Amino acid sequence: MQTYKIAVIAGDGIGKEVVPAAIEVLDEVARLDGSFQFEWTYFPWGCDYYLEHGEMMPEDGLETLKQFDQIFLGAVGMPELVPDHISLWGLLIKIRRGLKQSINVRPAKLLAGLESPLKNPENFDITVVRENSEGEYSDSGGRMHSGADEIAIQNAVFTRKGTERAMHYAFELAKNSRQHVTSATKSNGLTYSMPFWDEVFNEVKENYPDIDTAVNHIDALAAFFVMKPQAFDVIVASNLFGDILTDLGGAIMGSIGIAPAANLNIEREYPSMFEPVHGSAPDIAGKGIANPIGQVWTGKMMLDFLGHQEAGARILNAIEQSLVAGVKTGDLGGASSLTEVKNSILQSL
Amino acid sequence: MQTYKIAVIAGDGIGKEVVPAAIEVLDEVARLDGSFQFEWTYFPWGCDYYLEHGEMMPEDGLETLKQFDQIFLGAVGMPELVPDHISLWGLLIKIRRGLKQSINVRPAKLLAGLESPLKNPENFDITVVRENSEGEYSDSGGRMHSGADEIAIQNAVFTRKGTERAMHYAFELAKNSRQHVTSATKSNGLTYSMPFWDEVFNEVKENYPDIDTAVNHIDALAAFFVMKPQAFDVIVASNLFGDILTDLGGAIMGSIGIAPAANLNIEREYPSMFEPVHGSAPDIAGKGIANPIGQVWTGKMMLDFLGHQEAGARILNAIEQSLVAGVKTGDLGGASSLTEVKNSILQSL
Ligand SMILES: CC(C)[C@H](C(=O)O)[C@@H](O)C(=O)O
Ligand SMILES: CC(C)[C@H](C(=O)O)[C@@H](O)C(=O)O
Repeated sequence: MQTYKIAVIAGDGIGKEVVPAAIEVLDEVARLDGSFQFEWTYFPWGCDYYLEHGEMMPEDGLETLKQFDQIFLGAVGMPELVPDHISLWGLLIKIRRGLKQSINVRPAKLLAGLESPLKNPENFDITVVRENSEGEYSDSGGRMHSGADEIAIQNAVFTRKGTERAMHYAFELAKNSRQHVTSATKSNGLTYSMPFWDEVFNEVKENYPDIDTAVNHIDALAAFFVMKPQAFDVIVASNLFGDILTDLGGAIMGSIGIAPAANLNIEREYPSMFEPVHGSAPDIAGKGIANPIGQVWTGKMMLDFLGHQEAGARILNAIEQSLVAGVKTGDLGGASSLTEVKNSILQSL
Repeated sequence: MQTYKIAVIAGDGIGKEVVPAAIEVLDEVARLDGSFQFEWTYFPWGCDYYLEHGEMMPEDGLETLKQFDQIFLGAVGMPELVPDHISLWGLLIKIRRGLKQSINVRPAKLLAGLESPLKNPENFDITVVRENSEGEYSDSGGRMHSGADEIAIQNAVFTRKGTERAMHYAFELAKNSRQHVTSATKSNGLTYSMPFWDEVFNEVKENYPDIDTAVNHIDALAAFFVMKPQAFDVIVASNLFGDILTDLGGAIMGSIGIAPAANLNIEREYPSMFEPVHGSAPDIAGKGIANPIGQVWTGKMMLDFLGHQEAGARILNAIEQSLVAGVKTGDLGGASSLTEVKNSILQSL
């Protein structure tokens, strides 16, 4: 029996509700499978922790996390209490960077039983590979002068290593998918980063002669998510563009509350972190009405990454069965509670 | 009788088709109104011009344009023949910058007769005010090292003047609209530019106590364009975020081929430039099937800016009548030609 040691950071807001629900589902899948089990270790890090200790996690937090196989995270942020740049850069982004989770994979797929807000959606099944370590999120820049003369400069830093890594990963995924990679660019407006991005893409694609490619500007691509999402297979995007496209991906599926994500250390040197696309949603936190599907589907991505594709498929199936049965939270147009959705998924497993 | 001297740059691809169509409509509206007329002067600038002369427009092009009241532009770019950074930065962006058209206004509105790709769109009517002179499009940055070590840096430069100008303009527009301004930010990920943007927004809004405000991260905002576009009135956004949101705006209306835009020199020191959101669409150019509505609606924005709101309203009415009558190009699900759409709008005036 394989035992996986998982660090759990439920975090803030609805993270505290959806994480325990997803863990129940994962435990049940493990029990049904019989070949593996989870050992969950909870860390109370997040904004509450910050308000008490003045930091989002202890100083040796990253070292602690390195002792686990993977990390299962809910959501971070309580902007009313802790400024975002403290909460996110002190926990979420700190872990992504510190544990070199340089690839963020986020699917957007029309699930059975889901009502897309699109009128006649053809069956779409997109995987966005988001560069997760640099680019627009480089925490580099500055401010100068003051008053009317003040200037702020934000530097987006793209390295060949980081860019190539994301692109190679996208092409590898496409091999096992529908052999198509789209690059998200904006080289007509951003004159240094994106021409570089395009050049690297043109070089990387030479290594994959069997994969078809397309290049779209991010503005057009955002529109295409609405007009023809079925046109895409794997999309490789910079940190910011991937961020925008994957919220859009959640939207066209029916709710951001569904969209799963994986922050991958593809070298498997450190643990990866599995965290849904949605945030802490303070407005609905504590009411028991949050949609647990994003977190549960994120659990499926963790299973896949651990090599348990069959168990992972079982989860996605159960999610779809539960949706087809109409057990849906408010964001999906239903009236079910988090617990009802969780129970319905458990039953469908 | 007031005569407006308009510089016409049809540009590339479908620009050459939709601009003459829109000019016919504008001339007819002027004739019906009786109080003003247009004097159109055509400039053959664009990619063909570049292939012949090695530049997108003559060196004194900006000086020439300054002698006109306004500029009416189609589309720029033929990426197969001329790299985008040459064609766009040598003409479109050069004019936006050179003539200090620092505000880009782009509506997204559910027109009568249009089929939105959204399933149950409530009536939305959004105006995006896009900062048009700096930010992410600052043409500042560089590259260093080579081969595996290569790095590209893109600097986004935000000045207080540019940021405040866009925000003030947004609040002024909101006064005559539904008294609501949403700021598009991403201060949780971009740690210098967007916190600055947020600070300026918080200061500027103090001047408009009667206007309600909201702040959304660009990823969420993109999703909201799909989930609840009716929630927005005026949105103020940086150059890049405005670019992305307005293509999305076109998409939820039914086609990017509809979306109009105005590059405004709000100080009226130099001419403004009226140019639709869509590009040159080389794939459908020359076939007579391009949608002229974006360009015609852009003409309405020019009329509004010239103070002829009544004539402008007449155009939008005619567009809607023609759509309700089902006269639509392929991008809108119809089978009409450009000429048929133009004639239908002319008749409806
Ligand atoms: C062509 C491109 C440079 C331009 C922009 O990004 O500004 C276009 O997308 C637009 O929106 O007008
Ligand atoms: C909270 C924020 C910093 C984060 C991001 O932009 O990466 C979030 O939007 C996400 O997509 O995971």
